[in-house]
Amino acid sequence: MSKSKVQPKIMPGFMELLPEDQIAFNKMYDTIRSVYERYGFLPLDTPVIELSEVLLAKAGGETEKQIYRFQKGDSDVSLRFDLTVPLARYVAQHAGDLAFPFKRYQMSKVFRGERPQKGRFREFYQCDIDVIGQDSLDIVYDAEMPAVIYNVFKELAFGAFTIRMNNRKVLNGYFAELGYTEVIGDILRTIDKLEKIGREAVTEELEKFGVTAADAERILTFLSLRGTNDEVIEALRAQDIANELYKQGVEELAEVVSYLRGFGVEERAFIIDLTIARGLDYYTGTVFETMLNDYPSMGSVCSGGRYDNLAEYYTDQKLPGIGISIGLTRLFYQLKENGLIPAGSGCVARCLVIPMGGEQLSAALTAASAIRSAGISADVYCQSKGMKQKMKYAAKIGVPYAAIIGEDEAAQGTVMLKDMATGEQRAVAIAELADAVRV
Amino acid sequence: MSKSKVQPKIMPGFMELLPEDQIAFNKMYDTIRSVYERYGFLPLDTPVIELSEVLLAKAGGETEKQIYRFQKGDSDVSLRFDLTVPLARYVAQHAGDLAFPFKRYQMSKVFRGERPQKGRFREFYQCDIDVIGQDSLDIVYDAEMPAVIYNVFKELAFGAFTIRMNNRKVLNGYFAELGYTEVIGDILRTIDKLEKIGREAVTEELEKFGVTAADAERILTFLSLRGTNDEVIEALRAQDIANELYKQGVEELAEVVSYLRGFGVEERAFIIDLTIARGLDYYTGTVFETMLNDYPSMGSVCSGGRYDNLAEYYTDQKLPGIGISIGLTRLFYQLKENGLIPAGSGCVARCLVIPMGGEQLSAALTAASAIRSAGISADVYCQSKGMKQKMKYAAKIGVPYAAIIGEDEAAQGTVMLKDMATGEQRAVAIAELADAVRV
Repeated sequence: MSKSKVQPKIMPGFMELLPEDQIAFNKMYDTIRSVYERYGFLPLDTPVIELSEVLLAKAGGETEKQIYRFQKGDSDVSLRFDLTVPLARYVAQHAGDLAFPFKRYQMSKVFRGERPQKGRFREFYQCDIDVIGQDSLDIVYDAEMPAVIYNVFKELAFGAFTIRMNNRKVLNGYFAELGYTEVIGDILRTIDKLEKIGREAVTEELEKFGVTAADAERILTFLSLRGTNDEVIEALRAQDIANELYKQGVEELAEVVSYLRGFGVEERAFIIDLTIARGLDYYTGTVFETMLNDYPSMGSVCSGGRYDNLAEYYTDQKLPGIGISIGLTRLFYQLKENGLIPAGSGCVARCLVIPMGGEQLSAALTAASAIRSAGISADVYCQSKGMKQKMKYAAKIGVPYAAIIGEDEAAQGTVMLKDMATGEQRAVAIAELADAVRV
Repeated sequence: MSKSKVQPKIMPGFMELLPEDQIAFNKMYDTIRSVYERYGFLPLDTPVIELSEVLLAKAGGETEKQIYRFQKGDSDVSLRFDLTVPLARYVAQHAGDLAFPFKRYQMSKVFRGERPQKGRFREFYQCDIDVIGQDSLDIVYDAEMPAVIYNVFKELAFGAFTIRMNNRKVLNGYFAELGYTEVIGDILRTIDKLEKIGREAVTEELEKFGVTAADAERILTFLSLRGTNDEVIEALRAQDIANELYKQGVEELAEVVSYLRGFGVEERAFIIDLTIARGLDYYTGTVFETMLNDYPSMGSVCSGGRYDNLAEYYTDQKLPGIGISIGLTRLFYQLKENGLIPAGSGCVARCLVIPMGGEQLSAALTAASAIRSAGISADVYCQSKGMKQKMKYAAKIGVPYAAIIGEDEAAQGTVMLKDMATGEQRAVAIAELADAVRV
């Protein structure tokens, strides 16, 4: 490369794919979108750039440090760092034009200037759905979320998965009853290490936060409650906890479980797990996580929950809601790392039409048109190269079929159709070509 | 609103749509994408943020001033301002992994900090296709571009349109022959005002650039050559111009026209127009513009052309290419301004299932599942409100059908299906519901 050239590269922490992976990525994107739409969620597309004053009305701490914020002309602007704040701003701004409950999806890139590390991205897709009520939002919508998650991951077909649900009222009420309201976060973070450091070490650490050994024992037993969802709910009801919030949370869990059956979610794909807490200062009721059973190290691949008030920084209207989010860029990266995105699986065209010489170009264009008329993607190789190079191109792009047209084929209105995987060849009439290359 | 609230707003020059318009926008996006894919173009998704050093390797002048450029940590970064520079960077970076000709589409937002004005956007979608050759790229690919444009605008169905084609070699050769190479830009810009200021004023202005009155007359006559494509090509061949570049350009035009028929482009949708020049320092051969016949004031809705070398700033490889671009955000805005995006035409769900009371919720969920199983979008109204409010919601979201379930319907496994447009109601069995609400 000459000295004067600029080295073509992108920044670390940004995902950019080769076409075959991009096709696999888009297929996942399209699957998620299609399920979201099947449940009646409306599309939104908010700006990438927003006024910092608006976008950061709430933010603070770690999030704020990561934000891509800069001055352009007289404006202090920032790139969106999630899709929830833009949703809050949007709903507050357009409330008069929206029908509530307002169900929207947005599947767009968000930006966080994190220190780059394996599997963490600075620019990544979030695929969000939320339902926003005006003043109130029925608990049935809490059950709609796992129904959507269930169908998304069933259709993505990356194996068995488990949606884990909890309710923040249960946790908050329980720890209030025991007198540990101030240290809930510390307790949950410590218990999170249970598998790694063991029960004894956890109990010791809990003591640092003022939790007595007896309470530690009680808490550990409580949080590890397991069984069928009905069994867990019965066990929760049977606890000796008088706290009203706790009781309300337990009944909400029970209601969501009962509706889930109506939504057609398989019982085995869904469990109550009291250790799920999610963002501590944000969610106020139902919370979700989703794990791929065979890949627990991936962590949660779809999370979310219920919040009391979406847009309090922008409006006095009370807007309770519930939402979930799939971090698609990270998920794709993890699936790829685990060998779940097969290499070379992606080619847009089903068939590459190859004229042997320039005289067959017109016949090749006709053949491609016949395939496209059936709504199927086709490509024509139009460079003047030798047949060897043409076939090499077909192999490299990973197209399933090559339709070769020589003098005889052009004269007869046929192609020599080659199955690129098996190498088999057969003559096919142009009128039958679309059906022959269809999936 | 209380004093402490932040006013929810976005910056001027950014497009944000209400859901019904977003649905119409997405429909256009999906149509364009589907045609691009049908022609075998591969998807790309490059980062929004790139290193300034890389992104601005070529830029200068007006473009550079508009760029959203800022410092993040140690990095000088910029938001992409088009999709061509990222493509050049991508191809130079990944050349070893790509098959050439490399056909890619990208349909993404780009960012330009222009002074906001009506119909100009600072953040907008470009929908690009390009074909990149290694060392050479056959002229047939020039004919594939209008074929794609033709199918895109036929399927978008916004009325008759005309693809106008020219070849920069014809212009450059012609003006070289007349000795005006240095002032081609000035001449073309002046002639562009022909309709506005008239022939006399144009001739006067041309004199300022050293064009004699006789040459002005000759140029005006030349550039206004009209007729069938074959007639124009014959007239171009018959010109008394010895310049080799000119002759080459004319034969390229002739070749593209001849291939177009093979691609199935209707003759009447396509004309040679010698006044089309496009970006003066960028395109080197075929150039295109596309006009909606009934809305000439919109200007070109799809433009592009042939360039000799895509990535000279990043690599020594010669990468000739041809591409076109649709500015979707601006196009959508213009169509809307001209009343071509019907209001209220958008609802994702085909049917809103409404349980009259909480006891019918389970039946409502079953009905919605039946519709969704057929791949059709359905929604369930789950708030505990009166029937009046429920029906008001159905009207507001613009859903085509409401399926009401009361005690009787639940008992009989039916719904009362209301056509929201006509107001007609009829009982429909749940098993037949999907077919009844299908488009």
